Amino acid sequence: MKIGFIGLGIMGRPMAGRLMAGGHIAYLMSRSGVPHELTAAGGIACDSPKEVAHHAEIIFLMVPDTPDVEKVLFAEDGVEQGLAGGKVVVDMSTISPVATRAFARRIAAHNCEYLDAPVSGGDVGAKNATLTIMVGGPESAFNRVKPLFELMGKSVTLIGANGSGQVCKLANNIVVALNIEAVAEALVFAAKAGADPAKVRQALMGGFAGSRILEVHGERMLKRAFEPGFRVGLHQKDLNIALSVARELGVSLPNTATAQELFNACVARGGARWDHSSMVRALESLADFELGGHST
Amino acid sequence: MKIGFIGLGIMGRPMAGRLMAGGHIAYLMSRSGVPHELTAAGGIACDSPKEVAHHAEIIFLMVPDTPDVEKVLFAEDGVEQGLAGGKVVVDMSTISPVATRAFARRIAAHNCEYLDAPVSGGDVGAKNATLTIMVGGPESAFNRVKPLFELMGKSVTLIGANGSGQVCKLANNIVVALNIEAVAEALVFAAKAGADPAKVRQALMGGFAGSRILEVHGERMLKRAFEPGFRVGLHQKDLNIALSVARELGVSLPNTATAQELFNACVARGGARWDHSSMVRALESLADFELGGHST
Repeated sequence: MKIGFIGLGIMGRPMAGRLMAGGHIAYLMSRSGVPHELTAAGGIACDSPKEVAHHAEIIFLMVPDTPDVEKVLFAEDGVEQGLAGGKVVVDMSTISPVATRAFARRIAAHNCEYLDAPVSGGDVGAKNATLTIMVGGPESAFNRVKPLFELMGKSVTLIGANGSGQVCKLANNIVVALNIEAVAEALVFAAKAGADPAKVRQALMGGFAGSRILEVHGERMLKRAFEPGFRVGLHQKDLNIALSVARELGVSLPNTATAQELFNACVARGGARWDHSSMVRALESLADFELGGHST
Repeated sequence: MKIGFIGLGIMGRPMAGRLMAGGHIAYLMSRSGVPHELTAAGGIACDSPKEVAHHAEIIFLMVPDTPDVEKVLFAEDGVEQGLAGGKVVVDMSTISPVATRAFARRIAAHNCEYLDAPVSGGDVGAKNATLTIMVGGPESAFNRVKPLFELMGKSVTLIGANGSGQVCKLANNIVVALNIEAVAEALVFAAKAGADPAKVRQALMGGFAGSRILEVHGERMLKRAFEPGFRVGLHQKDLNIALSVARELGVSLPNTATAQELFNACVARGGARWDHSSMVRALESLADFELGGHST
Protein backbone atom coordinates (compact mmCIF):
# COMPACT_ATOMS: atom_id res chain seq x y z
CA MET A 1 0.00 0.00 0.00
CA LYS A 2 1.17 3.57 -0.65
CA ILE A 3 1.36 5.41 2.63
CA GLY A 4 2.44 8.89 3.60
CA PHE A 5 4.17 9.95 6.81
CA ILE A 6 4.57 13.58 7.86
CA GLY A 7 6.63 14.35 10.97
CA LEU A 8 9.72 12.17 11.45
CA GLY A 9 10.91 13.14 14.92
CA ILE A 10 11.67 10.94 17.93
CA MET A 11 8.29 9.16 17.52
CA GLY A 12 7.48 9.45 13.80
CA ARG A 13 10.83 8.16 12.60
CA PRO A 14 10.64 4.65 14.11
CA MET A 15 6.88 4.44 13.39
CA ALA A 16 7.44 5.18 9.67
CA GLY A 17 10.27 2.64 9.76
CA ARG A 18 7.89 -0.04 11.07
CA LEU A 19 5.34 0.68 8.32
CA MET A 20 8.06 0.44 5.66
CA ALA A 21 9.37 -2.80 7.19
CA GLY A 22 5.80 -4.10 6.76
CA GLY A 23 6.26 -3.79 3.00
CA HIS A 24 4.54 -0.47 2.33
CA ILE A 25 5.75 2.22 -0.05
CA ALA A 26 6.29 5.40 1.95
CA TYR A 27 6.12 9.06 0.89
CA LEU A 28 7.88 11.04 3.58
CA MET A 29 8.13 14.62 4.76
CA SER A 30 9.51 16.29 7.85
CA ARG A 31 10.20 19.89 8.85
CA SER A 32 13.78 18.94 9.67
CA GLY A 33 14.33 16.82 6.54
CA VAL A 34 13.88 13.09 5.91
CA PRO A 35 16.42 10.95 7.83
CA HIS A 36 18.89 9.13 5.58
CA GLU A 37 18.05 5.71 7.10
CA LEU A 38 14.50 6.03 5.73
CA THR A 39 15.44 7.05 2.18
CA ALA A 40 18.14 4.35 2.21
CA ALA A 41 15.38 1.85 3.05
CA GLY A 42 13.40 2.97 -0.03
CA GLY A 43 11.35 5.86 1.37
CA ILE A 44 10.56 8.69 -1.04
CA ALA A 45 11.27 12.21 0.26
CA CYS A 46 8.61 14.77 -0.70
CA ASP A 47 8.79 18.58 -0.73
CA SER A 48 5.39 19.31 0.83
CA PRO A 49 2.45 17.72 2.66
CA LYS A 50 0.49 18.30 -0.55
CA GLU A 51 2.89 16.09 -2.50
CA VAL A 52 2.67 13.35 0.18
CA ALA A 53 -1.14 13.44 0.04
CA HIS A 54 -1.09 13.38 -3.75
CA HIS A 55 0.86 10.10 -3.87
CA ALA A 56 -0.34 8.24 -0.74
CA GLU A 57 -3.61 6.47 0.02
CA ILE A 58 -3.28 6.70 3.81
CA ILE A 59 -1.53 9.81 5.17
CA PHE A 60 -0.12 9.68 8.72
CA LEU A 61 0.79 12.76 10.78
CA MET A 62 3.00 12.78 13.88
CA VAL A 63 3.78 16.37 14.86
CA PRO A 64 4.02 18.20 18.20
CA ASP A 65 0.84 20.23 18.76
CA THR A 66 -2.55 21.45 17.45
CA PRO A 67 -1.20 24.40 15.40
CA ASP A 68 1.33 22.07 13.72
CA VAL A 69 -1.42 19.67 12.63
CA GLU A 70 -3.50 22.59 11.35
CA LYS A 71 -0.57 23.92 9.34
CA VAL A 72 0.34 20.51 7.82
CA LEU A 73 -3.29 19.93 6.81
CA PHE A 74 -4.56 23.31 5.70
CA ALA A 75 -1.69 25.76 5.01
CA GLU A 76 -0.37 26.53 1.50
CA ASP A 77 0.81 23.23 -0.06
CA GLY A 78 -0.87 21.36 2.82
CA VAL A 79 -2.37 17.87 2.80
CA GLU A 80 -5.82 19.23 1.84
CA GLN A 81 -4.52 20.45 -1.51
CA GLY A 82 -3.23 17.00 -2.46
CA LEU A 83 -6.35 15.01 -1.48
CA ALA A 84 -8.61 13.05 -3.80
CA GLY A 85 -11.74 11.11 -2.78
CA GLY A 86 -11.23 7.84 -0.82
CA LYS A 87 -8.01 8.70 1.04
CA VAL A 88 -7.64 8.53 4.81
CA VAL A 89 -5.85 11.09 6.99
CA VAL A 90 -4.58 9.64 10.29
CA ASP A 91 -3.38 12.11 12.91
CA MET A 92 -1.30 10.30 15.54
CA SER A 93 -0.21 13.52 17.31
CA THR A 94 -1.66 14.40 20.73
CA ILE A 95 -3.77 17.52 20.16
CA SER A 96 -7.08 19.16 21.11
CA PRO A 97 -10.17 16.93 20.61
CA VAL A 98 -12.20 20.05 19.80
CA ALA A 99 -9.86 21.11 16.97
CA THR A 100 -9.74 17.45 15.88
CA ARG A 101 -13.50 17.40 15.25
CA ALA A 102 -13.22 20.53 13.09
CA PHE A 103 -10.27 19.09 11.11
CA ALA A 104 -12.20 15.83 10.55
CA ARG A 105 -15.15 17.78 9.09
CA ARG A 106 -12.90 19.70 6.67
CA ILE A 107 -11.24 16.46 5.48
CA ALA A 108 -14.63 14.73 5.11
CA ALA A 109 -15.72 17.54 2.76
CA HIS A 110 -13.18 16.12 0.28
CA ASN A 111 -14.83 12.67 0.42
CA CYS A 112 -11.94 11.46 2.55
CA GLU A 113 -11.99 9.97 6.06
CA TYR A 114 -10.14 11.16 9.15
CA LEU A 115 -8.91 9.23 12.19
CA ASP A 116 -7.44 10.68 15.37
CA ALA A 117 -5.09 8.02 16.69
CA PRO A 118 -2.78 9.31 19.42
CA VAL A 119 -0.43 6.86 21.07
CA SER A 120 1.10 6.14 24.45
CA GLY A 121 4.26 4.19 25.11
CA GLY A 122 6.90 6.78 24.17
CA ASP A 123 9.94 6.38 21.93
CA VAL A 124 10.63 2.92 23.38
CA GLY A 125 7.13 1.78 22.39
CA ALA A 126 7.60 3.33 18.94
CA LYS A 127 10.89 1.48 18.41
CA ASN A 128 9.54 -1.86 19.64
CA ALA A 129 6.11 -1.47 18.00
CA THR A 130 4.43 -1.86 21.39
CA LEU A 131 2.47 1.41 21.35
CA THR A 132 -1.05 1.72 22.73
CA ILE A 133 -3.13 3.36 19.97
CA MET A 134 -6.42 5.08 20.89
CA VAL A 135 -8.57 5.77 17.86
CA GLY A 136 -11.51 8.07 17.13
CA GLY A 137 -13.35 8.12 13.81
CA PRO A 138 -15.52 6.14 11.39
CA GLU A 139 -15.40 2.35 11.77
CA SER A 140 -14.87 1.89 8.00
CA ALA A 141 -11.67 3.93 8.12
CA PHE A 142 -10.58 2.18 11.33
CA ASN A 143 -10.92 -1.25 9.73
CA ARG A 144 -8.98 -0.11 6.69
CA VAL A 145 -6.06 1.31 8.71
CA LYS A 146 -6.05 -1.35 11.48
CA PRO A 147 -3.43 -3.63 9.82
CA LEU A 148 -1.11 -0.60 9.63
CA PHE A 149 -1.75 0.32 13.29
CA GLU A 150 -0.86 -3.25 14.19
CA LEU A 151 2.58 -2.79 12.63
CA MET A 152 3.20 0.02 15.15
CA GLY A 153 1.35 -1.00 18.33
CA LYS A 154 0.30 -3.93 20.47
CA SER A 155 -3.01 -2.50 21.71
CA VAL A 156 -5.29 -0.79 19.18
CA THR A 157 -8.76 0.35 20.33
CA LEU A 158 -11.52 2.20 18.49
CA ILE A 159 -12.97 4.39 21.25
CA GLY A 160 -15.73 6.13 19.27
CA ALA A 161 -16.34 9.05 16.91
CA ASN A 162 -13.71 11.61 15.87
CA GLY A 163 -12.13 13.32 18.86
CA SER A 164 -12.59 10.39 21.23
CA GLY A 165 -9.12 9.03 20.48
CA GLN A 166 -7.74 12.38 21.66
CA VAL A 167 -10.06 12.40 24.69
CA CYS A 168 -8.82 8.94 25.65
CA LYS A 169 -5.20 10.00 25.31
CA LEU A 170 -5.82 13.04 27.51
CA ALA A 171 -7.52 10.80 30.09
CA ASN A 172 -4.45 8.56 29.94
CA ASN A 173 -2.10 11.46 30.55
CA ILE A 174 -4.26 12.76 33.42
CA VAL A 175 -3.98 9.37 35.16
CA VAL A 176 -0.25 9.11 34.48
CA ALA A 177 0.45 12.62 35.85
CA LEU A 178 -1.71 12.05 38.93
CA ASN A 179 -0.24 8.62 39.65
CA ILE A 180 3.24 10.17 39.47
CA GLU A 181 2.08 12.88 41.85
CA ALA A 182 0.61 10.24 44.18
CA VAL A 183 3.81 8.21 44.36
CA ALA A 184 5.84 11.41 44.84
CA GLU A 185 3.67 12.58 47.78
CA ALA A 186 3.81 9.14 49.39
CA LEU A 187 7.58 8.67 49.07
CA VAL A 188 8.45 12.20 50.24
CA PHE A 189 6.05 11.79 53.18
CA ALA A 190 7.45 8.37 54.11
CA ALA A 191 11.09 9.43 53.85
CA LYS A 192 10.54 12.58 55.87
CA ALA A 193 8.67 10.55 58.49
CA GLY A 194 11.75 8.36 58.88
CA ALA A 195 10.88 5.27 56.81
CA ASP A 196 13.14 3.98 54.03
CA PRO A 197 11.25 4.99 50.84
CA ALA A 198 12.71 2.06 48.87
CA LYS A 199 11.26 -0.42 51.38
CA VAL A 200 7.96 1.45 51.40
CA ARG A 201 7.78 1.26 47.59
CA GLN A 202 8.54 -2.45 47.76
CA ALA A 203 5.85 -3.12 50.38
CA LEU A 204 3.24 -1.15 48.40
CA MET A 205 3.87 -2.88 45.12
CA GLY A 206 1.73 -5.98 45.51
CA GLY A 207 -1.39 -4.34 47.02
CA PHE A 208 -4.04 -1.82 46.04
CA ALA A 209 -1.41 0.92 45.75
CA GLY A 210 0.26 -1.05 42.95
CA SER A 211 0.63 0.62 39.55
CA ARG A 212 2.94 0.78 36.54
CA ILE A 213 3.93 4.25 37.75
CA LEU A 214 4.90 3.01 41.25
CA GLU A 215 6.99 0.37 39.53
CA VAL A 216 8.75 2.45 36.87
CA HIS A 217 8.57 6.08 37.99
CA GLY A 218 8.83 5.28 41.71
CA GLU A 219 12.15 3.61 40.96
CA ARG A 220 13.25 6.62 38.88
CA MET A 221 12.49 8.94 41.83
CA LEU A 222 14.59 6.82 44.20
CA LYS A 223 17.46 6.41 41.74
CA ARG A 224 17.24 10.07 40.64
CA ALA A 225 17.02 8.86 37.04
CA PHE A 226 15.50 11.97 35.47
CA GLU A 227 16.81 11.73 31.90
CA PRO A 228 13.73 11.31 29.64
CA GLY A 229 11.63 9.13 29.02
CA PHE A 230 8.70 11.48 28.64
CA ARG A 231 9.61 15.12 29.01
CA VAL A 232 7.97 17.48 31.51
CA GLY A 233 7.43 20.04 28.72
CA LEU A 234 5.38 17.60 26.63
CA HIS A 235 3.30 16.34 29.55
CA GLN A 236 2.69 19.98 30.47
CA LYS A 237 1.41 20.62 26.92
CA ASP A 238 -1.01 17.65 27.21
CA LEU A 239 -2.35 18.74 30.62
CA ASN A 240 -2.78 22.22 29.21
CA ILE A 241 -5.06 20.81 26.49
CA ALA A 242 -6.94 18.69 29.07
CA LEU A 243 -7.46 21.63 31.44
CA SER A 244 -8.64 23.95 28.68
CA VAL A 245 -11.06 21.35 27.26
CA ALA A 246 -12.30 20.69 30.82
CA ARG A 247 -12.91 24.41 31.29
CA GLU A 248 -14.96 24.53 28.07
CA LEU A 249 -16.96 21.48 29.16
CA GLY A 250 -17.49 22.56 32.76
CA VAL A 251 -15.49 19.76 34.38
CA SER A 252 -13.46 20.43 37.53
CA LEU A 253 -10.08 18.67 37.60
CA PRO A 254 -8.55 19.86 40.88
CA ASN A 255 -5.61 17.44 41.09
CA THR A 256 -4.74 17.76 37.40
CA ALA A 257 -4.49 21.50 38.00
CA THR A 258 -2.13 20.97 40.94
CA ALA A 259 -0.02 18.48 38.98
CA GLN A 260 0.30 21.06 36.20
CA GLU A 261 1.47 23.65 38.75
CA LEU A 262 4.13 21.20 39.95
CA PHE A 263 5.27 20.69 36.34
CA ASN A 264 5.39 24.48 36.02
CA ALA A 265 7.65 24.55 39.08
CA CYS A 266 9.97 22.00 37.43
CA VAL A 267 10.14 24.13 34.30
CA ALA A 268 10.92 27.20 36.44
CA ARG A 269 14.01 25.29 37.64
CA GLY A 270 15.11 24.50 34.08
CA GLY A 271 13.40 21.09 33.96
CA ALA A 272 11.35 21.22 30.75
CA ARG A 273 13.46 18.38 29.36
CA TRP A 274 13.62 16.32 32.57
CA ASP A 275 11.60 13.09 32.71
CA HIS A 276 8.08 13.67 34.10
CA SER A 277 8.92 11.59 37.20
CA SER A 278 10.94 14.66 38.25
CA MET A 279 7.64 16.11 39.47
CA VAL A 280 8.86 14.73 42.81
CA ARG A 281 11.48 17.53 42.82
CA ALA A 282 8.75 20.16 43.05
CA LEU A 283 7.25 18.42 46.11
CA GLU A 284 10.72 18.02 47.63
CA SER A 285 11.39 21.72 47.24
CA LEU A 286 8.09 22.49 49.02
CA ALA A 287 9.30 20.33 51.92
CA ASP A 288 12.91 21.65 51.72
CA PHE A 289 14.03 18.03 51.50
CA GLU A 290 15.41 15.55 49.01
CA LEU A 291 14.76 11.82 48.70
CA GLY A 292 18.18 11.23 47.13
CA GLY A 293 20.62 8.40 47.48
CA HIS A 294 18.07 5.65 48.05
CA SER A 295 18.22 2.82 45.58
CA THR A 296 15.91 -0.15 45.40
CA MET B 1 1.77 -20.54 71.50
CA LYS B 2 -0.49 -18.52 73.80
CA ILE B 3 -1.65 -15.45 71.93
CA GLY B 4 -4.01 -12.60 72.80
CA PHE B 5 -6.28 -10.72 70.43
CA ILE B 6 -8.05 -7.49 71.40
CA GLY B 7 -10.55 -6.00 68.95
CA LEU B 8 -12.71 -8.53 67.08
CA GLY B 9 -14.52 -6.39 64.52
CA ILE B 10 -14.76 -6.81 60.75
CA MET B 11 -10.96 -7.22 60.53
CA GLY B 12 -9.92 -8.65 63.91
CA ARG B 13 -12.45 -11.46 63.94
CA PRO B 14 -11.19 -13.33 60.83
CA MET B 15 -7.56 -12.53 61.73
CA ALA B 16 -7.96 -14.09 65.19
CA GLY B 17 -9.71 -17.02 63.53
CA ARG B 18 -6.70 -17.58 61.26
CA LEU B 19 -4.29 -17.57 64.23
CA MET B 20 -6.46 -20.09 66.09
CA ALA B 21 -6.70 -22.29 62.99
CA GLY B 22 -2.88 -22.25 63.02
CA GLY B 23 -3.04 -24.13 66.34
CA HIS B 24 -2.52 -21.28 68.81
CA ILE B 25 -4.35 -20.85 72.11
CA ALA B 26 -6.18 -17.54 71.98
CA TYR B 27 -7.18 -15.17 74.80
CA LEU B 28 -9.81 -12.85 73.37
CA MET B 29 -11.41 -9.53 74.20
CA SER B 30 -13.59 -7.11 72.30
CA ARG B 31 -15.60 -4.02 73.26
CA SER B 32 -18.67 -5.58 71.69
CA GLY B 33 -18.14 -9.05 73.18
CA VAL B 34 -16.34 -12.12 71.84
CA PRO B 35 -18.14 -13.69 68.84
CA HIS B 36 -19.57 -17.16 69.53
CA GLU B 37 -17.75 -18.72 66.56
CA LEU B 38 -14.40 -17.93 68.23
CA THR B 39 -15.29 -19.32 71.70
CA ALA B 40 -16.85 -22.36 69.99
CA ALA B 41 -13.49 -22.90 68.27
CA GLY B 42 -11.74 -22.93 71.67
CA GLY B 43 -10.99 -19.24 72.19
CA ILE B 44 -10.99 -18.01 75.81
CA ALA B 45 -13.03 -14.84 76.44
CA CYS B 46 -11.37 -12.42 78.87
CA ASP B 47 -12.84 -9.52 80.84
CA SER B 48 -10.10 -6.96 80.25
CA PRO B 49 -7.00 -6.22 78.17
CA LYS B 50 -5.05 -6.73 81.42
CA GLU B 51 -6.30 -10.30 81.67
CA VAL B 52 -5.42 -10.99 78.01
CA ALA B 53 -1.89 -9.64 78.55
CA HIS B 54 -1.51 -11.68 81.73
CA HIS B 55 -2.17 -15.00 79.93
CA ALA B 56 -0.72 -14.41 76.46
CA GLU B 57 2.85 -14.23 75.24
CA ILE B 58 2.11 -12.21 72.08
CA ILE B 59 -0.76 -9.69 72.34
CA PHE B 60 -2.40 -8.44 69.13
CA LEU B 61 -4.53 -5.28 68.90
CA MET B 62 -6.92 -4.43 66.03
CA VAL B 63 -9.02 -1.40 66.99
CA PRO B 64 -10.21 1.69 65.09
CA ASP B 65 -8.01 4.66 66.01
CA THR B 66 -5.16 6.12 68.08
CA PRO B 67 -7.23 6.87 71.23
CA ASP B 68 -8.60 3.30 71.17
CA VAL B 69 -5.10 1.83 71.14
CA GLU B 70 -4.05 4.17 73.95
CA LYS B 71 -7.03 3.13 76.04
CA VAL B 72 -6.53 -0.60 75.47
CA LEU B 73 -2.85 -0.33 76.39
CA PHE B 74 -2.73 2.18 79.22
CA ALA B 75 -6.18 2.73 80.78
CA GLU B 76 -7.35 1.07 84.03
CA ASP B 77 -7.12 -2.74 83.50
CA GLY B 78 -5.21 -2.12 80.27
CA VAL B 79 -2.57 -4.34 78.65
CA GLU B 80 0.27 -2.56 80.47
CA GLN B 81 -1.03 -3.81 83.83
CA GLY B 82 -0.93 -7.45 82.72
CA LEU B 83 2.56 -7.39 81.21
CA ALA B 84 5.59 -9.32 82.37
CA GLY B 85 9.09 -9.19 80.80
CA GLY B 86 9.58 -10.92 77.42
CA LYS B 87 6.08 -10.43 75.97
CA VAL B 88 5.41 -8.74 72.62
CA VAL B 89 2.61 -6.23 71.94
CA VAL B 90 1.61 -6.10 68.24
CA ASP B 91 -0.64 -3.23 67.17
CA MET B 92 -2.23 -4.01 63.80
CA SER B 93 -4.54 -0.97 63.85
CA THR B 94 -3.85 2.02 61.56
CA ILE B 95 -2.93 4.90 63.86
CA SER B 96 -0.52 7.81 64.28
CA PRO B 97 3.18 6.89 63.85
CA VAL B 98 4.06 9.62 66.35
CA ALA B 99 1.81 8.16 69.07
CA THR B 100 3.10 4.70 68.09
CA ARG B 101 6.68 5.66 68.98
CA ALA B 102 5.54 6.88 72.40
CA PHE B 103 3.50 3.70 73.02
CA ALA B 104 6.50 1.54 72.03
CA ARG B 105 8.73 3.33 74.56
CA ARG B 106 6.22 2.78 77.37
CA ILE B 107 5.91 -0.92 76.53
CA ALA B 108 9.72 -1.28 76.31
CA ALA B 109 9.97 0.06 79.85
CA HIS B 110 8.36 -3.22 80.98
CA ASN B 111 11.10 -5.24 79.22
CA CYS B 112 8.60 -6.10 76.51
CA GLU B 113 8.82 -5.43 72.78
CA TYR B 114 6.37 -3.56 70.56
CA LEU B 115 5.58 -3.90 66.86
CA ASP B 116 3.38 -1.64 64.77
CA ALA B 117 1.99 -3.86 62.03
CA PRO B 118 -0.88 -2.25 60.13
CA VAL B 119 -2.38 -4.12 57.21
CA SER B 120 -3.91 -3.48 53.84
CA GLY B 121 -6.23 -5.74 51.92
CA GLY B 122 -9.49 -5.15 53.78
CA ASP B 123 -11.93 -7.68 55.16
CA VAL B 124 -11.53 -9.87 52.07
CA GLY B 125 -7.77 -10.03 52.68
CA ALA B 126 -8.39 -10.79 56.36
CA LYS B 127 -10.75 -13.67 55.53
CA ASN B 128 -8.45 -15.15 52.87
CA ALA B 129 -5.24 -14.50 54.82
CA THR B 130 -3.86 -12.46 51.92
CA LEU B 131 -3.19 -9.24 53.85
CA THR B 132 -0.17 -7.03 53.21
CA ILE B 133 1.46 -6.45 56.61
CA MET B 134 3.83 -3.49 57.06
CA VAL B 135 5.90 -3.77 60.22
CA GLY B 136 7.89 -1.34 62.33
CA GLY B 137 9.94 -2.35 65.39
CA PRO B 138 12.90 -4.42 66.63
CA GLU B 139 14.09 -7.21 64.33
CA SER B 140 14.15 -9.70 67.22
CA ALA B 141 10.43 -9.19 67.85
CA PHE B 142 9.70 -9.26 64.11
CA ASN B 143 11.39 -12.63 63.71
CA ARG B 144 9.49 -14.02 66.69
CA VAL B 145 6.07 -12.89 65.41
CA LYS B 146 6.72 -13.52 61.70
CA PRO B 147 5.25 -17.07 61.63
CA LEU B 148 2.04 -15.62 63.13
CA PHE B 149 1.94 -12.79 60.57
CA GLU B 150 2.28 -15.40 57.85
CA LEU B 151 -0.92 -17.08 59.07
CA MET B 152 -2.75 -13.79 58.31
CA GLY B 153 -1.01 -12.28 55.27
CA LYS B 154 0.78 -13.09 52.05
CA SER B 155 3.24 -10.17 52.08
CA VAL B 156 5.02 -9.34 55.34
CA THR B 157 7.72 -6.64 55.32
CA LEU B 158 9.83 -5.19 58.14
CA ILE B 159 10.13 -1.54 57.08
CA GLY B 160 12.28 -0.23 59.95
CA ALA B 161 12.07 1.02 63.54
CA ASN B 162 8.83 1.54 65.48
CA GLY B 163 6.45 3.87 63.68
CA SER B 164 7.66 2.98 60.18
CA GLY B 165 4.99 0.31 59.75
CA GLN B 166 2.41 3.04 60.33
CA VAL B 167 4.25 5.47 58.03
CA CYS B 168 4.23 2.83 55.29
CA LYS B 169 0.50 2.21 55.76
CA LEU B 170 -0.22 5.93 55.54
CA ALA B 171 1.90 6.13 52.36
CA ASN B 172 -0.17 3.22 51.01
CA ASN B 173 -3.43 4.99 51.76
CA ILE B 174 -2.19 8.24 50.24
CA VAL B 175 -1.42 6.42 46.96
CA VAL B 176 -4.73 4.54 47.03
CA ALA B 177 -6.76 7.74 47.61
CA LEU B 178 -4.87 9.67 44.93
CA ASN B 179 -5.10 6.86 42.38
CA ILE B 180 -8.86 6.74 42.99
CA GLU B 181 -8.99 10.50 42.49
CA ALA B 182 -6.93 10.18 39.29
CA VAL B 183 -9.22 7.56 37.77
CA ALA B 184 -12.27 9.59 38.81
CA GLU B 185 -10.97 12.79 37.15
CA ALA B 186 -10.06 10.90 33.98
CA LEU B 187 -13.37 9.06 33.62
CA VAL B 188 -15.55 12.10 34.37
CA PHE B 189 -13.47 14.15 31.92
CA ALA B 190 -13.66 11.49 29.20
CA ALA B 191 -17.40 10.90 29.59
CA LYS B 192 -18.21 14.58 29.58
CA ALA B 193 -16.02 15.03 26.50
CA GLY B 194 -18.14 12.45 24.71
CA ALA B 195 -16.04 9.28 24.94
CA ASP B 196 -17.42 6.02 26.41
CA PRO B 197 -15.67 5.82 29.81
CA ALA B 198 -15.78 2.00 29.81
CA LYS B 199 -13.82 1.90 26.54
CA VAL B 200 -11.42 4.51 27.85
CA ARG B 201 -10.78 2.45 31.00
CA GLN B 202 -10.19 -0.63 28.84
CA ALA B 203 -7.74 1.18 26.55
CA LEU B 204 -5.80 2.61 29.51
CA MET B 205 -5.45 -0.68 31.35
CA GLY B 206 -2.40 -2.12 29.59
CA GLY B 207 -0.23 1.02 29.50
CA PHE B 208 1.46 3.41 31.92
CA ALA B 209 -1.92 4.47 33.34
CA GLY B 210 -2.49 0.89 34.50
CA SER B 211 -3.07 0.27 38.22
CA ARG B 212 -4.97 -1.97 40.61
CA ILE B 213 -7.24 1.01 41.29
CA LEU B 214 -8.07 1.52 37.58
CA GLU B 215 -8.91 -2.16 37.44
CA VAL B 216 -11.01 -2.56 40.59
CA HIS B 217 -12.24 0.91 41.55
CA GLY B 218 -12.56 2.12 37.96
CA GLU B 219 -15.00 -0.72 37.39
CA ARG B 220 -16.86 0.16 40.60
CA MET B 221 -17.28 3.76 39.38
CA LEU B 222 -18.72 2.61 36.05
CA LYS B 223 -21.01 0.00 37.63
CA ARG B 224 -21.97 2.37 40.48
CA ALA B 225 -20.97 -0.39 42.94
CA PHE B 226 -20.50 1.75 46.04
CA GLU B 227 -21.26 -0.76 48.80
CA PRO B 228 -18.01 -1.20 50.82
CA GLY B 229 -15.25 -2.46 50.42
CA PHE B 230 -13.30 0.20 52.27
CA ARG B 231 -15.46 2.91 53.76
CA VAL B 232 -15.02 6.62 53.05
CA GLY B 233 -15.13 7.34 56.80
CA LEU B 234 -12.15 5.09 57.50
CA HIS B 235 -10.09 6.35 54.60
CA GLN B 236 -10.88 9.88 55.77
CA LYS B 237 -9.54 8.98 59.23
CA ASP B 238 -6.29 7.68 57.70
CA LEU B 239 -5.77 10.76 55.51
CA ASN B 240 -6.45 12.89 58.56
CA ILE B 241 -3.55 11.18 60.36
CA ALA B 242 -1.33 11.54 57.27
CA LEU B 243 -2.13 15.24 56.86
CA SER B 244 -1.57 16.02 60.51
CA VAL B 245 1.76 14.11 60.61
CA ALA B 246 2.77 15.90 57.38
CA ARG B 247 1.98 19.24 58.98
CA GLU B 248 4.18 18.40 61.99
CA LEU B 249 7.02 17.28 59.69
CA GLY B 250 6.75 20.18 57.26
CA VAL B 251 5.70 18.16 54.22
CA SER B 252 3.25 19.60 51.70
CA LEU B 253 0.71 17.06 50.36
CA PRO B 254 -1.47 19.17 48.03
CA ASN B 255 -3.36 16.36 46.29
CA THR B 256 -3.90 14.38 49.51
CA ALA B 257 -5.51 17.51 50.93
CA THR B 258 -7.83 17.80 47.91
CA ALA B 259 -8.72 14.10 48.06
CA GLN B 260 -9.63 14.55 51.73
CA GLU B 261 -11.90 17.47 50.79
CA LEU B 262 -13.63 15.26 48.23
CA PHE B 263 -14.13 12.58 50.90
CA ASN B 264 -15.55 15.32 53.13
CA ALA B 265 -18.01 16.17 50.34
CA CYS B 266 -19.10 12.52 50.16
CA VAL B 267 -19.69 12.48 53.92
CA ALA B 268 -21.71 15.69 53.62
CA ARG B 269 -24.03 13.77 51.29
CA GLY B 270 -24.39 10.90 53.77
CA GLY B 271 -21.60 8.79 52.28
CA ALA B 272 -19.41 7.94 55.29
CA ARG B 273 -20.22 4.26 54.77
CA TRP B 274 -19.97 4.27 50.95
CA ASP B 275 -16.99 2.56 49.36
CA HIS B 276 -14.05 4.97 48.86
CA SER B 277 -14.42 4.65 45.06
CA SER B 278 -17.51 6.88 45.55
CA MET B 279 -15.05 9.81 45.63
CA VAL B 280 -16.06 10.05 41.95
CA ARG B 281 -19.46 11.32 43.12
CA ALA B 282 -17.89 14.45 44.58
CA LEU B 283 -16.19 15.21 41.24
CA GLU B 284 -19.43 14.46 39.40
CA SER B 285 -21.33 16.90 41.56
CA LEU B 286 -18.71 19.59 40.81
CA ALA B 287 -19.39 19.01 37.09
CA ASP B 288 -23.16 18.66 37.56
CA PHE B 289 -22.91 15.34 35.75
CA GLU B 290 -23.07 11.62 36.44
CA LEU B 291 -21.12 8.76 34.83
CA GLY B 292 -23.92 6.28 35.50
CA GLY B 293 -25.20 3.39 33.49
CA HIS B 294 -21.92 2.43 31.84
CA SER B 295 -20.80 -1.09 32.45
CA THR B 296 -17.61 -2.71 31.27
